[in-house]
Amino acid sequence: MSDSPMPPEPLADRVLRGDPRAIARAISLVESESHAGTSLIRALFSRTGRAIVVGITGPPGAGKSTLVDRLIAEIRRQGPTVGVVAVDPTSPFTGGAVLGDRLRMQAHAEDAGVFIRSMATRGHLGGLSRATADATVVLDAAGRDVVIVETVGVGQDEVEIVRLADVSVVTLVPGTGDEVQALKAGIMEIADVFVVNKADREGADRLVAAIEANLSLQTFGPHEWRPPIVQTVATTGQGIDALWATISGCRAHAGATGAGRERARVRGEQRLRELVARRCVDWVRGRLAPGEWDETIARIADRQFDPYSAAESVLDKALSGRSTIA
Amino acid sequence: MSDSPMPPEPLADRVLRGDPRAIARAISLVESESHAGTSLIRALFSRTGRAIVVGITGPPGAGKSTLVDRLIAEIRRQGPTVGVVAVDPTSPFTGGAVLGDRLRMQAHAEDAGVFIRSMATRGHLGGLSRATADATVVLDAAGRDVVIVETVGVGQDEVEIVRLADVSVVTLVPGTGDEVQALKAGIMEIADVFVVNKADREGADRLVAAIEANLSLQTFGPHEWRPPIVQTVATTGQGIDALWATISGCRAHAGATGAGRERARVRGEQRLRELVARRCVDWVRGRLAPGEWDETIARIADRQFDPYSAAESVLDKALSGRSTIA
Repeated sequence: MSDSPMPPEPLADRVLRGDPRAIARAISLVESESHAGTSLIRALFSRTGRAIVVGITGPPGAGKSTLVDRLIAEIRRQGPTVGVVAVDPTSPFTGGAVLGDRLRMQAHAEDAGVFIRSMATRGHLGGLSRATADATVVLDAAGRDVVIVETVGVGQDEVEIVRLADVSVVTLVPGTGDEVQALKAGIMEIADVFVVNKADREGADRLVAAIEANLSLQTFGPHEWRPPIVQTVATTGQGIDALWATISGCRAHAGATGAGRERARVRGEQRLRELVARRCVDWVRGRLAPGEWDETIARIADRQFDPYSAAESVLDKALSGRSTIA
Repeated sequence: MSDSPMPPEPLADRVLRGDPRAIARAISLVESESHAGTSLIRALFSRTGRAIVVGITGPPGAGKSTLVDRLIAEIRRQGPTVGVVAVDPTSPFTGGAVLGDRLRMQAHAEDAGVFIRSMATRGHLGGLSRATADATVVLDAAGRDVVIVETVGVGQDEVEIVRLADVSVVTLVPGTGDEVQALKAGIMEIADVFVVNKADREGADRLVAAIEANLSLQTFGPHEWRPPIVQTVATTGQGIDALWATISGCRAHAGATGAGRERARVRGEQRLRELVARRCVDWVRGRLAPGEWDETIARIADRQFDPYSAAESVLDKALSGRSTIA
């Protein structure tokens, strides 16, 4: 209800000023895959690269939410501001993401230096990782010193998201009787830092030994980062200071050795591939005769046309400009 | 060491005859993303569509492996043959997938009517779902009556894989204190059948009630399938016969109502999109000047070029045929 004749300040500028309501609005835009979201990322992208992006994953029940809450408190105690993207594969009809946001925000409600946002799983394959990457851009551009990306699942998408952070933290928990399963979960390779949470439980030593045994199978060069194992009890805060020191150390190491630059390159390639792939499919579809895309799918569903031949056929037609219904 | 002058029988023909060694070889080919694998799927695809494809997922610790083993035994007792693709996000250096294969094969080692194969997570986003779909094609073409796709994770990829089966089974377990988390895990929507495994544990009734409460929030049309909840104790075999009856009933219902045809269409569209996307990226890359793809990625990594503008730029260049390093 302003009576000013001035035009409203562009959203990108408000994000760059760090306005929390602008950040929230911006993340909603990139999540909705809107054109406005794309324009926003174009405007913000050159202003990023300053934040430390920390990815945190691990199996359900590893206590990641509590760990992240404690880590936020520790980082804030030392000064830096924090933004959190919690990738939360929530059912649309339980509305869990919004509820989770509210519960977690309460703990840091009085602190303007903390911004937490959940993102639900939705859309096509790869859509989640694109939206998460864009949300990270927003928080980085908004001046958050540390951006934490927390994933709940241990699926391929979640692993991929966390792997592309500056520092990837894998959280495991002893005494669940499935150390082996944890180590099997494809997350050994992506860890820059291991956390053994609930380290006061029986079996913590065994879990640490199992991780060590796995690490000892890998060869590390003289200047290569060897993932440390940090033991924490998130509920009491034990080990959280050591965890933050380790994360900071990892980032510093990556900056000094060029490992960080290589990771930025891999991240750039993945983003380019995803976006080119999506735009290409739309372009191909648009070049076909009306109904031909759906007709091709119907023929695959009827087993008349195998997917590989179908893909080649629509590509050939789109590229040659000759498009008819076969 | 044959002394026959006859040329060897083509792999596709051996798969169609149901030869287990040919099936194993065929799945290795499609997993390796080789040209031979693609040719094989082209040859086999029109011979598929007969098998029931059953997807089984759920959080780690839900007892899926035991459940699947019992389900195999029940199906075999009734006559149909079974093929299993266990999507196993295994660390490459622990070699767990191979070990898991061996352990599980032993239980059915004497039964030629059972074929079990683990597939490890690898490669790019979407690579796992493509390889799993192709392995399903191989087993279907080989005449397996039932193809079970079992996923370990609860990530977006795993959910996507299971969602595209003819019948999707979601396995939950009581007493882990995280019924809410299980219901939050984005897997409510994909279930055709819920299994409450370890149903002799305390809390089973509560879990059943929680699932029911969630289902009651959804509206089902008069001819629409409402996911039943089957209680099992996989370790003793309790409820496994009811589970198989429910799965068969769901498939029959889908066939009668056209729901199965709609799912085949969605599956066809996803496969077409994935393959067009991948080929498009390769095509675009091939149309650029030497080094331009890598140069573009380096500029994204340096924050000089946002990913959206970069994707548009390389696409424009590829499509116009004018390609120079900017």
